[in-house]
Amino acid sequence: METKGNGKSRKVSSIRAPRMAKTGLPLVQANQNCDFHGYDADTLMKETAKLRKIITKRGTLEILIPLCCTTSSVRYIKFRNTMKGFSSKTLAKRLKELDESGILERQFYNEIPPRVEYRLTNKGQELVESVIPILNWMKKWAKD
Amino acid sequence: METKGNGKSRKVSSIRAPRMAKTGLPLVQANQNCDFHGYDADTLMKETAKLRKIITKRGTLEILIPLCCTTSSVRYIKFRNTMKGFSSKTLAKRLKELDESGILERQFYNEIPPRVEYRLTNKGQELVESVIPILNWMKKWAKD
Repeated sequence: METKGNGKSRKVSSIRAPRMAKTGLPLVQANQNCDFHGYDADTLMKETAKLRKIITKRGTLEILIPLCCTTSSVRYIKFRNTMKGFSSKTLAKRLKELDESGILERQFYNEIPPRVEYRLTNKGQELVESVIPILNWMKKWAKD
Repeated sequence: METKGNGKSRKVSSIRAPRMAKTGLPLVQANQNCDFHGYDADTLMKETAKLRKIITKRGTLEILIPLCCTTSSVRYIKFRNTMKGFSSKTLAKRLKELDESGILERQFYNEIPPRVEYRLTNKGQELVESVIPILNWMKKWAKD
């Protein structure tokens, strides 16, 4: 199948290279996957404020990292051992927040001694997947 | 082209469904793209602490959003108008941090009145791209 051009030449009043910066720096296509076109930043921020508050808190990423590579439950004691820079109070608070916001699911086993485990919900797993690009970005640029 | 099976039957000593949770909740393959296997959470967190501190601060995402859909410069006044919930002091501080950490590039034009513009560096564009999945996650779950 062939299509023919209509032979008309278009008048171009100004030729611009839309993705080239003034400084000539090569630009990656940042808005390629960006579907926030026409989405008001203010609205987005208001809508997401609650979730944003949770995930940007000190300790939340630290909790999510050990869960990143597993879909099975992680014992409280493991978080306790991994997160050395955090008080048990902070850790417990973060875990509670993540539980209440439906990111983690708390499982309590009435054994002796009692055992507490946490696993990601579907919402939580989607969060971890979304966090991975950021972590990769941090890894890439951390040394600079 | 055909390939023939060798007819041998494999012994399977234990059959496990590795991605099924005890509770039977359907699990997305969270670690599919996760290349943090064997990466110590503690090391990662230490390495990335500086960058993490910047991007989790109140206001940073708000600054990055208007830049999300553009690779061109954004005027200071535009941030000022978009970010109504922030004092000029906070905004100026955040912009300075993002400039110093190589995420934004500040351009000063000595005109009357003076004009200040910010654009994303390559590092910044990669950050915005990494932030998009989180924003989408927030949009998806914000209403719950």
